[in-house]
Amino acid sequence: MAFTLLHLTSLEQPSSMEVGLSSLSTPHVILNQDELKKIAGYKAVEFVTSGMIVGLGTGSTAKHAVDRIGELMRQGRLKNIVGIPTSKKTLEQAVSLGIPVSDLDSYSVVDLAIDGADEVDPYMNLVKGRGGCLLREKMMECACKKFIVVVDESKLVTHLGRSGLAMPVEVVPFCWKFTAKRLQDLFEDCVAKLRTVVCYCQDGNKMEQPFVTDNGNYIIDLYFKKDIGDLNVANNTILKLAGVVDHGIFLDMATTVIVAGKLGVTIKNK
Amino acid sequence: MAFTLLHLTSLEQPSSMEVGLSSLSTPHVILNQDELKKIAGYKAVEFVTSGMIVGLGTGSTAKHAVDRIGELMRQGRLKNIVGIPTSKKTLEQAVSLGIPVSDLDSYSVVDLAIDGADEVDPYMNLVKGRGGCLLREKMMECACKKFIVVVDESKLVTHLGRSGLAMPVEVVPFCWKFTAKRLQDLFEDCVAKLRTVVCYCQDGNKMEQPFVTDNGNYIIDLYFKKDIGDLNVANNTILKLAGVVDHGIFLDMATTVIVAGKLGVTIKNK
Repeated sequence: MAFTLLHLTSLEQPSSMEVGLSSLSTPHVILNQDELKKIAGYKAVEFVTSGMIVGLGTGSTAKHAVDRIGELMRQGRLKNIVGIPTSKKTLEQAVSLGIPVSDLDSYSVVDLAIDGADEVDPYMNLVKGRGGCLLREKMMECACKKFIVVVDESKLVTHLGRSGLAMPVEVVPFCWKFTAKRLQDLFEDCVAKLRTVVCYCQDGNKMEQPFVTDNGNYIIDLYFKKDIGDLNVANNTILKLAGVVDHGIFLDMATTVIVAGKLGVTIKNK
Repeated sequence: MAFTLLHLTSLEQPSSMEVGLSSLSTPHVILNQDELKKIAGYKAVEFVTSGMIVGLGTGSTAKHAVDRIGELMRQGRLKNIVGIPTSKKTLEQAVSLGIPVSDLDSYSVVDLAIDGADEVDPYMNLVKGRGGCLLREKMMECACKKFIVVVDESKLVTHLGRSGLAMPVEVVPFCWKFTAKRLQDLFEDCVAKLRTVVCYCQDGNKMEQPFVTDNGNYIIDLYFKKDIGDLNVANNTILKLAGVVDHGIFLDMATTVIVAGKLGVTIKNK
């Protein structure tokens, strides 16, 4: 893997000006998390060239990249782009920006995908799917020649699962409690929880319901208290469990990771 | 593995009489395939005792076993049985027979499951799911203390995939063509086809539509012209493919196989 650290001052002036980040030319500016995400997302779009089939990720960082692609297309600086969105939400965003969209059935090879991640380890392995789109993202990113991950520095971990946040597993709704129990039993000191959303009834009362993925499935979030151990073993063990559709561990898939931190942008290539 | 060959004449008389098979006491009777399935199904029910949580399979052979359980319960010879059906169809059958039903969320351990198979190899590995219920069947059969497979002798193969018939893979509907192509590319000389059903419109015209599983997914049927090779490798490779929910290869899960053949019933235990 090769590392490149670009200080914020080293961002190309035209690029940074166009994206409204000219004020970043001094390292003394304090950036919030969303501004860092925007820097990473915009930086990734510099890898996109006219004529490409581009995978469009989902989430707050990928959203900035999709916005930027739309902007460059409107300006005529990117042409003949076909976007392959990883969620219904991103599909709607791309359509609203005038980016022509298609799917993997029509384009089984994607030139480049840009997507966020929830955790990135030093080997460029990822946890993804806290936004609930892990399956479509994984399908896409398996089909990519290049997969650029865009994150702010808060997503860097020494080992996947270490953030203490959810590691999502997409499961069929049928007997999900049974599947959740079996998932929890796979790991020592692991807690499995059904992901829910709160709905408001007409009478103003709140109601908790399962979060439903774009594929009509549920998400079981795993919380680890201890190291999850060998990632390849965890990957296979979870997939073998009947009832599991897929999970948020993405091993050996990213080809580039762009990290926006308070001191600059780091680009890591495989 | 231990083998026991019971000649048809050696079936317990009370049992064979009750099931209307008394005419089988002579080996000269020629039985059709459904009669053989019935013998296997009824024989399996001899392993069921009162108070058991019993997994109820799906398909033409398992149907006979479920019928028989209902019959013995009506006669008061089986009591306090709870059935865990593997499909909506079997659920309906069990309810209509007065068998109390529940699910894996309520009973995460099943004493014994009885189910059919599409192929059985000499090591008691199976292909299942031509009826389209492979996922729920696999979930159930992972939860079983004992799993009795009931087949007629036409289902015996020297190697899984050798029958030339379908090896089903349940996939999410999203971009199923892409997934089918990737599945086909996993194996040499393999053809992947979407399973369809023919519907009749009000105007009498026929319309082909994807077969939809109880979980809202599609089935891609794989047809192999060559040996599929190491079954553990095939198992893992298919499961790792994003978009795949599960597949019909059941390795190392059956504890007993009951085969009804023209010359008798064979019982094989692990």
